Amino acid sequence: MADRTRFDLQDDDLPTAWLNIMPDLAGVAQPLPPLHPGTLQPITPDLLAPLFPEALILQEVSTEPWIDIPGPVLDVYRLWRPTPLYRATRLEAALQAPAHIYFKHEGTSPAGSHKPNTAIAQAYYNKEAGVRRLSTETGAGQWGSALSMACEFFDLECLVYMVRASFEQKPYRRIFMETFGATVVPSPSDGTDAGRKILAEHPDSTGSLGIAISEAIEVAAANPDTNYSIGSCLGHVLLHQTVIGLEAQKQMEQAGEAPDVVVGCVGGGSNYAGLAYPFMVGKLRGETPDMRFLATEPAACPTLTKGRFAYDFGDTAGLTPLLPMYTLGHGFVPAPVHAGGLRYHGDAPSLSLLVKEGYMEAVAYTQNEVFEAARLFAHTQGIVPAPESAHAIRGAVNEAIAAREAGEERVILLGLSGHGNFDMQAYDDYLNDRLPEVEFDDQDLTLSLTELPEVPVG
Amino acid sequence: MADRTRFDLQDDDLPTAWLNIMPDLAGVAQPLPPLHPGTLQPITPDLLAPLFPEALILQEVSTEPWIDIPGPVLDVYRLWRPTPLYRATRLEAALQAPAHIYFKHEGTSPAGSHKPNTAIAQAYYNKEAGVRRLSTETGAGQWGSALSMACEFFDLECLVYMVRASFEQKPYRRIFMETFGATVVPSPSDGTDAGRKILAEHPDSTGSLGIAISEAIEVAAANPDTNYSIGSCLGHVLLHQTVIGLEAQKQMEQAGEAPDVVVGCVGGGSNYAGLAYPFMVGKLRGETPDMRFLATEPAACPTLTKGRFAYDFGDTAGLTPLLPMYTLGHGFVPAPVHAGGLRYHGDAPSLSLLVKEGYMEAVAYTQNEVFEAARLFAHTQGIVPAPESAHAIRGAVNEAIAAREAGEERVILLGLSGHGNFDMQAYDDYLNDRLPEVEFDDQDLTLSLTELPEVPVG
Repeated sequence: MADRTRFDLQDDDLPTAWLNIMPDLAGVAQPLPPLHPGTLQPITPDLLAPLFPEALILQEVSTEPWIDIPGPVLDVYRLWRPTPLYRATRLEAALQAPAHIYFKHEGTSPAGSHKPNTAIAQAYYNKEAGVRRLSTETGAGQWGSALSMACEFFDLECLVYMVRASFEQKPYRRIFMETFGATVVPSPSDGTDAGRKILAEHPDSTGSLGIAISEAIEVAAANPDTNYSIGSCLGHVLLHQTVIGLEAQKQMEQAGEAPDVVVGCVGGGSNYAGLAYPFMVGKLRGETPDMRFLATEPAACPTLTKGRFAYDFGDTAGLTPLLPMYTLGHGFVPAPVHAGGLRYHGDAPSLSLLVKEGYMEAVAYTQNEVFEAARLFAHTQGIVPAPESAHAIRGAVNEAIAAREAGEERVILLGLSGHGNFDMQAYDDYLNDRLPEVEFDDQDLTLSLTELPEVPVG
Repeated sequence: MADRTRFDLQDDDLPTAWLNIMPDLAGVAQPLPPLHPGTLQPITPDLLAPLFPEALILQEVSTEPWIDIPGPVLDVYRLWRPTPLYRATRLEAALQAPAHIYFKHEGTSPAGSHKPNTAIAQAYYNKEAGVRRLSTETGAGQWGSALSMACEFFDLECLVYMVRASFEQKPYRRIFMETFGATVVPSPSDGTDAGRKILAEHPDSTGSLGIAISEAIEVAAANPDTNYSIGSCLGHVLLHQTVIGLEAQKQMEQAGEAPDVVVGCVGGGSNYAGLAYPFMVGKLRGETPDMRFLATEPAACPTLTKGRFAYDFGDTAGLTPLLPMYTLGHGFVPAPVHAGGLRYHGDAPSLSLLVKEGYMEAVAYTQNEVFEAARLFAHTQGIVPAPESAHAIRGAVNEAIAAREAGEERVILLGLSGHGNFDMQAYDDYLNDRLPEVEFDDQDLTLSLTELPEVPVG
C-alpha cells in the first residue's frame, strides 16, 4: 500500500474545549484593548451588550486558556466534524519537491467552509439568551451560508447583508442562504442609514465587508430582539475556530510529523487563526521556536503586508469600537476581486499583533498566480478550492518550490478553508484571461488613514 | 456522549475488489443478453471494441463474483474514499419516527457525487489501452464533471455532450468541467449526424441523455483514437460503483445494525446498484429474504413504475445494442425536470430484472414532494442534496413515516449520491413555487414503444 494520505479522527477525538490564545499571547506581547470610539478609553462589556449575548462578550475578554464547548454545539459539530486531514502526495509529485504537504479540509462542512464552527456557537449562545433574530454581513457568501444554517438549527431568524459585488456574482450563494430560510439583502442597501449614506455618495457602489458590517450592526442596535453576529476578526470568532487546529494537531501526530510551516489565507483572520493558534502556542512558549507561520492575502487588499498597525474601526460607518490592528483604513473599498471573503480593510487584533511582533509572516498574491495554484491543486488532488483558500495553496506551493530550490525537506500544513463550488464564475474568468491583476495603490492607504482618529499605538 | 452518528473507515478498509452481481443474479433469474440491432442475435465482444477497451468489455460479460481493483485506481479512490456513513438523528427526530436513518454520503467526492467511482476506473483502463480521448454524455453534469477530473488524472482528453437543458440551467457545471480541461458541447449539437437529425426535427430541443449518448457514441465510432465512456446503465459501470455498498456494509456493522430497507434514486441505476447490490446478494442467496430494496424515480420519467420491460436501444438514434430493460421508449424525451441525472428513458438491465422479478420495489415522486424532503434534510442535517438524491430522501422519509404509522422500528439505509451545490436554481424555483408538477403521459409510452423492434422478452 502507498503512503497513507488521509488521517481521520473518530467522534471521540472531537475537541471538547476551544483554545484561547490570549494568556500565551499576553506572555510575550502587550495586547491592546478595544477603545470606545467616543471616549477613546478601553471599552467596558456593557457597550457590546446591545449586539452580543453575555456569554460571547465574556469569551471576548476571557483570560482562561480553555473554554468548554457546550454539548448542543458539539452535537451539531458532529454533523461533519472531525474534518479530514489529507497529505497531498499528488501535488507534491507534480511540484517535484522534497516537501510533505498536508491540508486540513474544512470544505467538507455542509456550508462548504470553516465558517459553521463559529456560526453554530454564536447561534447557540444567542438562542440561550432569548434573542429572536441575528443580523450579519457576508462577503463571498461563505459566512452568510454558515449562519443561515446555524440559525435554522437553533430556530432563529437570519438577516444577511451581502456585499453587492458577491450578490451579483454569486446568485447560488443567495439561494443557498434562502434555502435555510434567511433573508438576504444586497449591501449597500437603502434600508439603513449607513447604506443610504454610501449610496448617496456612490450610487454604483459594489459594497465591501466594512459597509455590510455597518448595516448589520445598525439593525441590531436599533432592534432589541436582534443581535449582531460577525464571521471573523473578533476574539470569540477566532476562539471557536480553534477546533480546526486542535484536530490537525492530533492528525499530524498520526502522520508522525510536525509542520515546519503552517499556511493559511487571511481576510479577517479566523480560519487561519483557527488552524494556526494551537500550533502557535508552542512557539509563544518557546517549545517550537523554529515553526513558521505564513499568512496569505490578496494583493488587491494587502492589509498585513501594506497596511498600518493602528487603531481603526471594524466597519465603514464607524459604529464599532476602535480595534488595534493592521488596516488599510475603514474607508477603503477593495476592488471586487473574486476572493470576496478576503476583501476586508482590517485584521483580527491578535493576529495583527503576532505579525507585528514577528511570530507570523505575511505575503500577498495577485489573482492570476492564485488561480494558477488553484488549478494545479484541482488537477492533482481533484478539489476545486474557494478563491480565498487558493491564496493559502499558492503559499504552500511556493514553500514547496523554495524547499526544492534549497534542496531541503519541508513539512507544510495548509488550511483549505473551503471548496469553490459557488465560485465557478471566477474560474471561468481565469480560464478565459479575464482576471485583472488588481494591486493596491499606496496612495489609497494614505488617503483613507487620514480619517483615522489620532490614537497612539504601542 | 450522544449516540454515535458517523461511521468512518480507515484507508485499510477501502475495498480492493468490485462485487459482480451477475453470478448470483443468474442463480435466481435468467439475465437476457444484449442483442445486435441488425441481426437481433446476442452481441459478440468485437461489436463493442470500437467503443470500449478490452478490459471493460470483459467486465461487461464477466461471471466472476469479484474483480480486483487496479492499484492506480485505488490510489485515486484514496483522494476521498472511504466515504462517511452518517446516522441522520436530527432528521429522525424531526419525523418523530421510530426509525434509524443512515445515509452513505457520496457527495464528499471532489466532483460532488458517486460518479468518480467508475470515471476513474474507465479512464485508467482506456489509458492503459492507448486511447487518446474519451467522449461522453452528461445530464445534470455530475457524470461529465467526474469524467473530466478522471481524464485529467490519467492524461486523456475529454469531450462532453451536455444535455442542453442542463447546459443552460447549470453554467457552473460547464465551468467545473472546463477547469479540468474538458471540452463541453451542448446537445443536440450540429457536429454529429445524430444531433443534426434531432435539430432538423426539433430546432428547440432541450436534449436528453439518449440524444447525448448518440452523439458521444458517433464521435467515438468515427475516431480510432477516441473511445466512448458511459456514466450509468451498463454492467461495468454498476460494477465499479459497488465500492459504495461494500463500504456501507462494514459501516453498518460498526453501527451494529442491518438495514430493513435500502433506498436510492435511479436514473440509469448505477448509484443505487452500487449501494444496493452488496446487500442484494444476501437476499438472492436467501440469507436476508426480508430485506427490502426501494428504487425511487421522477414522475416525469417513471421508467421502472410505468415503463415496459422490453428490448430497447440505450440511445435515441439507435446506435447501441438492444438492451433488455424497463424503458419508456428510446424516442422519449422527458420534460426538463431539475433532476437531470434521472432523465433517461431506460434502466440498467440487471436492475430492471431485479424489479421485474420482485426483488426490488420502485416508486415515482413529483418534483415538489421531492424538494420538500430535500429542504427537510437540509434543515435538519445541514446538507443541501442534489435533486436526484432528493428522490432517495423522499423515499427514506416516507419509509420512516410508514414506520411511525405502523408503530414499528425500521432501519433505513439511504444512498446520498451527491450534493446540490450546482443545483441552486432548482431550489430557487422550488422556494418560489415555480416547479411544475410534471407527470408522465401514458400516451407517450404507447407512441414511442411502437418504434421498438419486435423482440420476444422472456
